[in-house]
Amino acid sequence: MNLGYVHGYEDTECQRLLDQSHILEDLLHHDTTFAPGSRVLELGCGVGAQTRIVARRNPEVRFTCVDINQASLDAARAAARKANLSNVSFQLGDARALPRPSHPFDAAFFCFVLEHLPDPERVLEHVMTLVRPGGTLMAIEGDHGSTFFHPQSELGWRTIQCLIDLQAAQGGDALIGRRLYDLFSGVGITDVQVDPRLVYADPSRPDWVEWFTERTYIAMVAGAREQALAAGMMTASDWDAGISELRESKRGSFCYTFFKARGKAPVRR
Amino acid sequence: MNLGYVHGYEDTECQRLLDQSHILEDLLHHDTTFAPGSRVLELGCGVGAQTRIVARRNPEVRFTCVDINQASLDAARAAARKANLSNVSFQLGDARALPRPSHPFDAAFFCFVLEHLPDPERVLEHVMTLVRPGGTLMAIEGDHGSTFFHPQSELGWRTIQCLIDLQAAQGGDALIGRRLYDLFSGVGITDVQVDPRLVYADPSRPDWVEWFTERTYIAMVAGAREQALAAGMMTASDWDAGISELRESKRGSFCYTFFKARGKAPVRR
Repeated sequence: MNLGYVHGYEDTECQRLLDQSHILEDLLHHDTTFAPGSRVLELGCGVGAQTRIVARRNPEVRFTCVDINQASLDAARAAARKANLSNVSFQLGDARALPRPSHPFDAAFFCFVLEHLPDPERVLEHVMTLVRPGGTLMAIEGDHGSTFFHPQSELGWRTIQCLIDLQAAQGGDALIGRRLYDLFSGVGITDVQVDPRLVYADPSRPDWVEWFTERTYIAMVAGAREQALAAGMMTASDWDAGISELRESKRGSFCYTFFKARGKAPVRR
Repeated sequence: MNLGYVHGYEDTECQRLLDQSHILEDLLHHDTTFAPGSRVLELGCGVGAQTRIVARRNPEVRFTCVDINQASLDAARAAARKANLSNVSFQLGDARALPRPSHPFDAAFFCFVLEHLPDPERVLEHVMTLVRPGGTLMAIEGDHGSTFFHPQSELGWRTIQCLIDLQAAQGGDALIGRRLYDLFSGVGITDVQVDPRLVYADPSRPDWVEWFTERTYIAMVAGAREQALAAGMMTASDWDAGISELRESKRGSFCYTFFKARGKAPVRR
């Protein structure tokens, strides 16, 4: 069974994930480091957009990358081969039901995954059992409610709200960033530290305007057009006007906040 | 004539401004530095909460601090004396109509001031004429629309919206942070750089929870209770429930973004 994935599995979505990973690499991953020799589990690797970055930055770490979608996994495997990554292996599976390995992992991480799961607590609780006591649990997630921009736009905001509502209808939570401290602490992960990473784009930062505001964020929202219209959430003309108005922020300003949470698997279970 | 100042001039408000300046000093001012020997104008210094910090961090700079309210200025002067600051002088005046000095200033700055002015463009345009060509213009402002928190609260958000609406009714803009790039660029300031400063508080950061979430932010919103009720914006019971629900974020998470803008007075006028 496939989980509902609000962003879909189209080629354009795959391209968006790669564009996103490029501009956000330093911001999100400058400190994604694991001890040399350790074994790390990635849950929900998708097409491997984050995998490639994290594996390249940690050449002496062995990664096991899991996804529930075979086509995504095939794409991730092909891309890893193309990038000459020899420290990554891929495995089809459901993060909620992965068998416990004979030797537990030293760390496990999620990138933009928990936000799509109807039961992130249950998944975290299970994944904790796959990591050695004292090992690392890490998650990077967005929070669409952190979005604000200038000039303001009511219709622009409604297109974003459609994406939030569609994701909620599929059991996800597009506002999960602000909940990460609670989620991690709530399941018993210890030493929880959450670090927000704010993206800010204005015309003095043209790379961010192009690669974040346009090709990452607006591309993400625009990708929900058909679902939103089919669900009767907005009219086509309101939707299109909303997307146009979001684009006006490329001449003004645009803000979004990601959250990176880290903690330790408890020593006693 | 006094400008409308949504936060009022009470002693509790003065205390809030000092609490705020304490916890935010590093975040907002670690890079508030001016060249030794330069002469710097502060507009709207109020009770001098920011003045004290900036003057202490720049002992070889001479500050001229202007405010439109005599009582605030007296408090600022007394506090500067108590703190043994010898590099600060105070002047009663309106930022929109300050006479041009015989020697222009090397820099001018605003902290939490533009957000209260009905005509920030006009003020900036005037202040640009008081600074030498190539000199620095700087502003630090908040943006209440950047606020988000967990657990979410509709009533809590409505109390914040009351403050935004009250400030707008007095001609201000509590969402000015996102507009700083536009404002600075629009009046012809060159080399504009805007740098957001995100505050994040959760129980792993108890100082931020206490000094920012509670004593700075919730104290600020709570201070608008009488005005909001008098204006019929909320019922007293809804208001009080809203403030209580905002306090729940002290066990969850709380986010707010400040903006620091910098640019240069144009060389040709």
